[in-house]
Amino acid sequence: MPTDATPPRSWVAAANDPGCDFPLQNLPYGVFSAGAEPPRCGVAIGDMIVDLVACEARGLVNAGGTFAAPQLNDFIAQGRAVWDRTRARLSALLAEDGDKSVPLVPMAQARLHLPIRVSEFTDFYASKNHAFNVGVLFRGPENALPAQWTHMPIGYNGRASSVVVSGTPIRRPMGQVRGQAGPEWTACRRLDLELELGAIIGADSPMGARVSVAQAEEMIFGYVLLNDWSARDIQAWEYQPLGPFQSKALGTTISPWIVTQAALEPFRCAGAERVNPLLPYLAEERPGFYDMTIGWTMNGQPMGRTNYNVMYYSSAQQLAHHTTSGCPMRVGDLLGSGTISGSGLEQTGALLEMTQGGQIPVMVNGQPRQFIEDGDEVGLYAFAQGQGYRIGFGPCTGRVLPATP
Amino acid sequence: MPTDATPPRSWVAAANDPGCDFPLQNLPYGVFSAGAEPPRCGVAIGDMIVDLVACEARGLVNAGGTFAAPQLNDFIAQGRAVWDRTRARLSALLAEDGDKSVPLVPMAQARLHLPIRVSEFTDFYASKNHAFNVGVLFRGPENALPAQWTHMPIGYNGRASSVVVSGTPIRRPMGQVRGQAGPEWTACRRLDLELELGAIIGADSPMGARVSVAQAEEMIFGYVLLNDWSARDIQAWEYQPLGPFQSKALGTTISPWIVTQAALEPFRCAGAERVNPLLPYLAEERPGFYDMTIGWTMNGQPMGRTNYNVMYYSSAQQLAHHTTSGCPMRVGDLLGSGTISGSGLEQTGALLEMTQGGQIPVMVNGQPRQFIEDGDEVGLYAFAQGQGYRIGFGPCTGRVLPATP
Repeated sequence: MPTDATPPRSWVAAANDPGCDFPLQNLPYGVFSAGAEPPRCGVAIGDMIVDLVACEARGLVNAGGTFAAPQLNDFIAQGRAVWDRTRARLSALLAEDGDKSVPLVPMAQARLHLPIRVSEFTDFYASKNHAFNVGVLFRGPENALPAQWTHMPIGYNGRASSVVVSGTPIRRPMGQVRGQAGPEWTACRRLDLELELGAIIGADSPMGARVSVAQAEEMIFGYVLLNDWSARDIQAWEYQPLGPFQSKALGTTISPWIVTQAALEPFRCAGAERVNPLLPYLAEERPGFYDMTIGWTMNGQPMGRTNYNVMYYSSAQQLAHHTTSGCPMRVGDLLGSGTISGSGLEQTGALLEMTQGGQIPVMVNGQPRQFIEDGDEVGLYAFAQGQGYRIGFGPCTGRVLPATP
Repeated sequence: MPTDATPPRSWVAAANDPGCDFPLQNLPYGVFSAGAEPPRCGVAIGDMIVDLVACEARGLVNAGGTFAAPQLNDFIAQGRAVWDRTRARLSALLAEDGDKSVPLVPMAQARLHLPIRVSEFTDFYASKNHAFNVGVLFRGPENALPAQWTHMPIGYNGRASSVVVSGTPIRRPMGQVRGQAGPEWTACRRLDLELELGAIIGADSPMGARVSVAQAEEMIFGYVLLNDWSARDIQAWEYQPLGPFQSKALGTTISPWIVTQAALEPFRCAGAERVNPLLPYLAEERPGFYDMTIGWTMNGQPMGRTNYNVMYYSSAQQLAHHTTSGCPMRVGDLLGSGTISGSGLEQTGALLEMTQGGQIPVMVNGQPRQFIEDGDEVGLYAFAQGQGYRIGFGPCTGRVLPATP
């Protein structure tokens, strides 16, 4: 935990509440609309949103007009010098002795939108606990952890078109599953969440080029919460040999606020202990994780909770691995961390693990749950705890609607 | 084969050559540039390209200015009525008694570009011969064909950012492979091609909606040749349990010309015989394949050659399956058919199959080949044979450059 005994304060009163997700030290980016105005870029502070278009019109910040877009891609594409300059400027404007005329919109009056146009979505599998737990359920304990797991970040390409912002309802999917006498067409019976962090890539890399872990760090703009909704019965029938497909395409919910790498920097820490050395292309010059509490709720009840530092591969390692083939990366690419699970059942980030494959129901507000039922709302949260403040992500929620047969 | 004894002729002389890929009946769309002009949309006829921007400027066609874009997405997004109207108009203009003032650019003077901005790329696995052959090599004969294979089109999300147009060099990738004593970092030693057809999706579908096979047919704009370059040694080490990732991200080459569904319609035919009934959502009201020769060359030498009608699942069935979860589809989505292989070794669409896992080299211009070597050029071709004409795709080539260690 950083030891700045008296953290700097903002003239936006709510930002100084120690339990507020959006203090002066955070300044996450998002896209919002209010009234009849079209969506535009903003920054969260306390219970308010800084209207960056109005700010730029008044000469308070300068981002080449990119804040007027309905997504952050054009701002992000300007590069780290612009990110750093804008953050420094907003920190000064919103500090206690800053400029109280900065145009703000109350968050309660705003609608929040998908913050980026997702170029492509890649999902990884970087919690050893999760990989082992799920491996046991899908393949038995002997084959639980794949042979290459401790040597490379395993990932697969997900579907970008079904990434939605927090609050978007999620429709229970229909699909093909293994039945008693051959395949069966059914509404999903084993609907699950996956508690993840998503890294937003902020720079392009050319085709044929490889990116080092250090370069990859420089390419990451920030992070969102990410719920990779999963249809476990569809997944079990479809996933061999080419990986999950329709079981993961029903929807992926991300938080509306992108917490920047800069805001998380004071919480940098090591991840899980390595069981073998990594090949040089995956070696880290410094720790690549953050000391950050992350958890989920169901219908408001706290469920699994752990720390991001249980992870085995960092987003920078995943990004470096992603380019080994020469695969070009683009601004707006979204890299899911993989489900974040600690070692205990109460630390797991998916019902599949928490209920041990649906065998042992958990109680939610006095009702048993094996998997997600229609009407259930799943929420994710995360925060890095400073002294007297915390860097939070705000909510990332989705409610499940019944299937359409 | 259609039986129109005297096929209609064009005033563009080369289009009437029975061996020409681009007769009046074809009219495939692409994006080209000539001289210092920016890339724009065009249609191939004989040895010429119709400059659609110049055509629209002269009032010969009407596509709302979309032909001036450097990709066909905006034209395609206007829908089937515009596709049909434009095709009928161009057919009339280019017919023997048409308008000889249509602005043409010699193909020899033009540079061809990627015809679409690829929204997302999904690759399937729909040749039973290929699935079985590769299954034997990766998992042995008992587990060769996955249990669900004859019940659903198996597919995975590929990487859109590495889709390139014919003629783009392909860099041999570096990667992590299984070594004698743990993983090894190496240039790929088992580089392969995959002979495929790619379907270009021409309409959006909303999130949460499912598309029937009949609706899916209506959403397909046309087809390209597609070479899904594959690093087999990287694939073998990485692909379990989440599917191929970096082994397929080094590059995917597509042909510059999109052959429309309308041009292929006269060649519609049934595919491979079904070994079991399909669930109703995959049932076809009419045959979904085309009687079309498809093959590949290496350094100019003919290699594998088969017919698209060996396939088990059509692009329309794949697209319908793709939406079972409610996954939204978008204009510019690219769906790879999967490797097209007949039953004999000389009919296979990948070296992995043709050389039986690299065990039995094949001769290429007097030189043995197990996999692709640096400097090798792979070309794909396909054509549907009419009486006195053929609907061809033109070349789809790529030459392999040495790895960058």
